[in-house]
Amino acid sequence: MTRTVIGSKSRTVTIGFDEPFVVIGERINPTGRRLLAEEMKAGNYDRVVADALAQVEAGARVLDVNAGIPLADEPKILADCIRLLQSVTDVPLCIDSSIVEALEAGLAAYQGKAILNSVTGEEERLERVLPLVKKYGCAVIAISNDETGISQDVDVRFAVAKRIVERARDHGIPAADVVVDPLVMPIGAINDAGRQVLALVRRLREELGVNTTCGASNLSFGLPNRNGLNAAFIGMAIGAGMTSAITNPLHAELMQAVRGADVVMGHDPQCMAWMRHYREPPPEGGETRGRRSNRRNRAPA
Amino acid sequence: MTRTVIGSKSRTVTIGFDEPFVVIGERINPTGRRLLAEEMKAGNYDRVVADALAQVEAGARVLDVNAGIPLADEPKILADCIRLLQSVTDVPLCIDSSIVEALEAGLAAYQGKAILNSVTGEEERLERVLPLVKKYGCAVIAISNDETGISQDVDVRFAVAKRIVERARDHGIPAADVVVDPLVMPIGAINDAGRQVLALVRRLREELGVNTTCGASNLSFGLPNRNGLNAAFIGMAIGAGMTSAITNPLHAELMQAVRGADVVMGHDPQCMAWMRHYREPPPEGGETRGRRSNRRNRAPA
Repeated sequence: MTRTVIGSKSRTVTIGFDEPFVVIGERINPTGRRLLAEEMKAGNYDRVVADALAQVEAGARVLDVNAGIPLADEPKILADCIRLLQSVTDVPLCIDSSIVEALEAGLAAYQGKAILNSVTGEEERLERVLPLVKKYGCAVIAISNDETGISQDVDVRFAVAKRIVERARDHGIPAADVVVDPLVMPIGAINDAGRQVLALVRRLREELGVNTTCGASNLSFGLPNRNGLNAAFIGMAIGAGMTSAITNPLHAELMQAVRGADVVMGHDPQCMAWMRHYREPPPEGGETRGRRSNRRNRAPA
Repeated sequence: MTRTVIGSKSRTVTIGFDEPFVVIGERINPTGRRLLAEEMKAGNYDRVVADALAQVEAGARVLDVNAGIPLADEPKILADCIRLLQSVTDVPLCIDSSIVEALEAGLAAYQGKAILNSVTGEEERLERVLPLVKKYGCAVIAISNDETGISQDVDVRFAVAKRIVERARDHGIPAADVVVDPLVMPIGAINDAGRQVLALVRRLREELGVNTTCGASNLSFGLPNRNGLNAAFIGMAIGAGMTSAITNPLHAELMQAVRGADVVMGHDPQCMAWMRHYREPPPEGGETRGRRSNRRNRAPA
């Protein structure tokens, strides 16, 4: 029963086979968000904080933080955001950058055990990122591609993941601290993308014994009703053994699928979380159907 | 690749590992529907026909027909309904009764290859129903309980299913014509009910090589937001290998989960069915978001 434990100063979150699914909020990312990018570049992090709080309120248990803005001082912005976020929320953070210097700046600023996003099977990336993971004692997301790109062969993607886990061990990093992303491809272009991921998740869990994550919404790229398709997919991925995902918790349909999947997996004891979120108001009308936080502290029926 | 082929006079439907999921519409059933029961007992089948057409329109590819009304002539009513339904729709029917005489009357009235609902592992039921299945050359739903009731041990439920499949073979009925219902229990009472079904569906498919079905909405009995939980469950069951379910296609959320699961499984080539159902209207406003039938003949984008 692999458990990946990450934490802030005052809160731990466990990603694990017998744990409720962990949603890692994806919103703090300037890619494709011009306004956010401009604000972050100018040192205005109001929207970063607002996005963080909204995602936590909606059910994110970890927040991904990315500061990838062209021609900006990414290491400084990422570190600033991390310090600021840790002053306003206690959820653990996922430090996300394609630039190793930014990852290191983020780790240096972070208090607790972060999760790093990400290492790949590319030789240079492996040998630059894994020492950081070891030095800071964090967890890391391992994406199953390498110098040859993303294979459409499930066996190759599995082999890349296995190689990263082995290399991490060589660096003194336990497999429990490597969370593998099997890579979700757009199913509108690659009809087999869903089956690939479900098969990989099962093998990663059964043969490699690792936790898994993914960018869940990639699957629906280019298709209509993306939320509906993402919701169907994430439940199926959880059924196959996926234990976390980087996705948007502000989509109620997706979060409902996650909570429903937790119930089906037996990870919501006595369905208490489900009842807390979805039960009807009492018939007297003494209470309105409020937001989750309004009902959080009520005992379930 | 097991394929269960059923049919009416003019249409066949295949339940199979590499086929789109088959929804068997559950609505034509007087249990718990007092008005429908009274009408059926009085020989008024207007609502039966309306329910049939609405379910087919919503995506049911087979219709379950049950006439279980206390103190009524169930064999006659069931046969009458079957004859009437076959005059208004060409979807195959699932002939549903706990009374063997009603099953036989239904089979005698039916034109085509029906699916019978159901046989169990109870000795008397086996030896009364299987000869009918053989005589009429139909398929049959096999429910994995026996004289001892419904076991909470997955191994026992699997063994019961295996015994029914073997007994059917003794009667000259191929395994492909036996669709196993692993039994879905209310998860509000039995926290393990979801895991039980997912594990059973996988074993029934991998070890016994049979198609599967279930009463999908039993899972959510007694819980709030049943449609949301049923939708999450059905996608996960499809991911585990379930190939059909007896459920209510009038719930849009459930049908969306089924269509999404078909996409993820690679059973919706080029996502054409998904796009036909969910794509946005063109920006000019030349077309409104109509019901499915209005858009059925449009080529996908």
